[in-house]
Amino acid sequence: MFHAVILAGGSGTRFWPLSRETFPKQMLNMVGEDSLLQQTVKRLDGFLTPDHLWIVTTEALAQAIHLHLKTLGKGAEKIQFIIEPFGRNTAPAVGLAAVTLNKISPDSIMMAMPSDHAIRDVKPFQDRLLWAVEAAKKGCLVTFGIKPSRPETGYGYIQRGPAFDGPEGRIFHAERFLEKPDLKTAEALIKEGNFYWNSGIFVWKVSKILSEIEKHLPSLYKTLKEIEVILLQTDQPDKRSALCAMLYAGLEAVSIDHGVLEKSQDVFVIPSDFGWSDLGSWTALDDILGRDERGNILQGNPIDIGSEGSIVIASDRVIATIGLKNMVVVDTPDATLIASKEKVQEVRKVVETLKKNQREEHLLHRTVERPWGHYTVLEKGSRYKIKRIVLHPKAKLSLQIHRRRSEHWVVISGTARVTRGEEVFDVHPNENTFIPISVKHRLENTGLIPLHIIEVQNGDYVDEDDIERFDDEYGREIKG
Amino acid sequence: MFHAVILAGGSGTRFWPLSRETFPKQMLNMVGEDSLLQQTVKRLDGFLTPDHLWIVTTEALAQAIHLHLKTLGKGAEKIQFIIEPFGRNTAPAVGLAAVTLNKISPDSIMMAMPSDHAIRDVKPFQDRLLWAVEAAKKGCLVTFGIKPSRPETGYGYIQRGPAFDGPEGRIFHAERFLEKPDLKTAEALIKEGNFYWNSGIFVWKVSKILSEIEKHLPSLYKTLKEIEVILLQTDQPDKRSALCAMLYAGLEAVSIDHGVLEKSQDVFVIPSDFGWSDLGSWTALDDILGRDERGNILQGNPIDIGSEGSIVIASDRVIATIGLKNMVVVDTPDATLIASKEKVQEVRKVVETLKKNQREEHLLHRTVERPWGHYTVLEKGSRYKIKRIVLHPKAKLSLQIHRRRSEHWVVISGTARVTRGEEVFDVHPNENTFIPISVKHRLENTGLIPLHIIEVQNGDYVDEDDIERFDDEYGREIKG
Repeated sequence: MFHAVILAGGSGTRFWPLSRETFPKQMLNMVGEDSLLQQTVKRLDGFLTPDHLWIVTTEALAQAIHLHLKTLGKGAEKIQFIIEPFGRNTAPAVGLAAVTLNKISPDSIMMAMPSDHAIRDVKPFQDRLLWAVEAAKKGCLVTFGIKPSRPETGYGYIQRGPAFDGPEGRIFHAERFLEKPDLKTAEALIKEGNFYWNSGIFVWKVSKILSEIEKHLPSLYKTLKEIEVILLQTDQPDKRSALCAMLYAGLEAVSIDHGVLEKSQDVFVIPSDFGWSDLGSWTALDDILGRDERGNILQGNPIDIGSEGSIVIASDRVIATIGLKNMVVVDTPDATLIASKEKVQEVRKVVETLKKNQREEHLLHRTVERPWGHYTVLEKGSRYKIKRIVLHPKAKLSLQIHRRRSEHWVVISGTARVTRGEEVFDVHPNENTFIPISVKHRLENTGLIPLHIIEVQNGDYVDEDDIERFDDEYGREIKG
Repeated sequence: MFHAVILAGGSGTRFWPLSRETFPKQMLNMVGEDSLLQQTVKRLDGFLTPDHLWIVTTEALAQAIHLHLKTLGKGAEKIQFIIEPFGRNTAPAVGLAAVTLNKISPDSIMMAMPSDHAIRDVKPFQDRLLWAVEAAKKGCLVTFGIKPSRPETGYGYIQRGPAFDGPEGRIFHAERFLEKPDLKTAEALIKEGNFYWNSGIFVWKVSKILSEIEKHLPSLYKTLKEIEVILLQTDQPDKRSALCAMLYAGLEAVSIDHGVLEKSQDVFVIPSDFGWSDLGSWTALDDILGRDERGNILQGNPIDIGSEGSIVIASDRVIATIGLKNMVVVDTPDATLIASKEKVQEVRKVVETLKKNQREEHLLHRTVERPWGHYTVLEKGSRYKIKRIVLHPKAKLSLQIHRRRSEHWVVISGTARVTRGEEVFDVHPNENTFIPISVKHRLENTGLIPLHIIEVQNGDYVDEDDIERFDDEYGREIKG
């Protein structure tokens, strides 16, 4: 019995403006056609069925990630979710998953890994995963140590001890964990030759990690056991999640590395070299993506005149770059970042400024995914908002009312079935209809092609929270 | 009799993306509330009435510049226009103006100056203009020489000779003209102390400049005389402009400096120091605008973290800059430029690329001024286009037909009077109406506040040239 647990609760700001609070790094696809999360799932192809794959994420991200994974097909809708009330670093997340799997079988082998790292070479990764599973069956806590290519100060290091077993050089005792070193230390570690980057990918038996948590993080263990009881006993979901949130809030935010692995005697490391990167910042793309002869990574067709060593990610606007040296330029429809590579880590200060100024560009993209399709805000002004809305075939929005805005819909392509008060009628391309304030309505695509409409909202308040839902296909909150 | 001639035919690319072919540098207001052209006009306040002010520009720009100047008020609609079929450098433009003024009075004093330069200190400029007029009456060709502050290689230089007359040090014989020197020469010129930058501002008697053109550019003179005859004799405006265009096409594109002033014996220079810049590139802003304590010029509220020596001009999107050094960043709704200061002159290569790729971002802004107001293209997609349209009070669009698109109009504010076929009706805020394909229609603002509407166009072709006009308030071409 093998289960994989993907930790997907991160909502980092290091890849702003491509990443947003509601569209975090793991959902970005700048290193391939698939997103980092989708790549993480696909990398396990052949190792398990979707119902043995677990996503640990927060309540805030769960629906978006569910939609995002569904597009993978191949039974991806069977992937299971473990919802944290909110993020509390990796030890509680891993513990919550272990408690969940423990109910299925304490002897299960559990892999835990981040959702937002890149691995270029899948085959050597999968080979090592097989070795790790074998070792885990024997009670090992197995880590993957990446052969370092430079004295990186942004990673933790694992020191290799004596060999464990199996073919020579496969698995070693982990002698020591080192948190992010300074440059001088990192250089010394590289020289020694027996230090590896800690990839954050782990394999162990469920009963083993639980007993290690009990030993090294007894208060986390106690809370996990309380949560286990609540999850089993309470029928009322609201009460249940409120109780869990309360318990979770009391937990220390500690990593599984620091809380358990650094202290345990049974940690092992598999030396690995499969093109791994934790993609800690924009400049990490240089390790993963091919650069052109001038050292540039140019995505989305910018017009570049003679730049060097730069990363330019354009969207559908014109981005023209001239003579850049070691810069990062990332364009999105509503925000553009221009930074020197050296200082790009300070992007978090930009996000803080946006928060402080009560903007929305750190929260949402201009295009927002929904269970029924997506919408793009084309413009918001005084008393109006204009959206392009796309509904998947057979999808329908909730039956809803807006108290402070009316809506004009113009159909561009597809056929819209419109419910308006007691009426139900179809609106065809190049026709329009009008939904007055406070009239119950629903928009539905009964056809086989996507439905595109332009919506012009009118009213003294045109924000998304002016909505009362009466019936919803996607289990969203019903008011009133 | 004093006339001022402003040469406003330039459609340079050096300030892309703020400037576009249809919205050239002279219409930009990055160095003040008024545009460069508007500042040029205002700088002459008190010297003449608007009917003594002449704009020389091309057919392509005339309407846009007329609209642009009208907003100045104070009789600005009386400013006169001299239309070149197309640009042919300054000698033909000055000659055309001289021929025009010659019909009014050969003894008039004529000032000629660029429309797109900056002058910070108006009072010393106006003082010197008075001196220049006095000298011009005596037959001098007067130039303004700017006291150089650095060995600039981008400007032409004028060498001062012996004093002419008036108070000591006011006006000097111009000994020699030097085209843009190399750095070593420029440094030597600065050391000599009797060289000035050629500001391109000139004052002379109409009869005098014409006789100098006759002497030094005889073939231009001959053509000007032919054009004079055509302008007097032919009633049919179409035939007249075709003839002028033909004659114009045969002219050599030469500057008045090179063609006449370098050769004439009667050229004088007034040493000047009034904060002049020809704004030859983005970096010229450093000379004109105040920089902050880190040497930055930040316009439009970018979020900046620790940049130095950089120019950042944001629009209404979020522009975040981190650790820039000596960079230029200019954002507009549809295009963003990011360049090192050192290489920013290469922006012309970007414009060439846009032309080659048949884009529109070098031609038009997303917001386009019209005689009746303006419109903004919010999105263009397959079979649709969305515009926000603003009509001035009492303005009306032409009576028109589109053969390949229908239009949905939603009124946001103001009241729209709509003509649709035989009907005429009013549409109020939060109401919509529909104009089917091939139905004659007109949109009019009968009210006292601006009319804002959202237009959704539907059709297999949604470009601007699908229009037949039947009646137009603004003298635009009527088809059909």
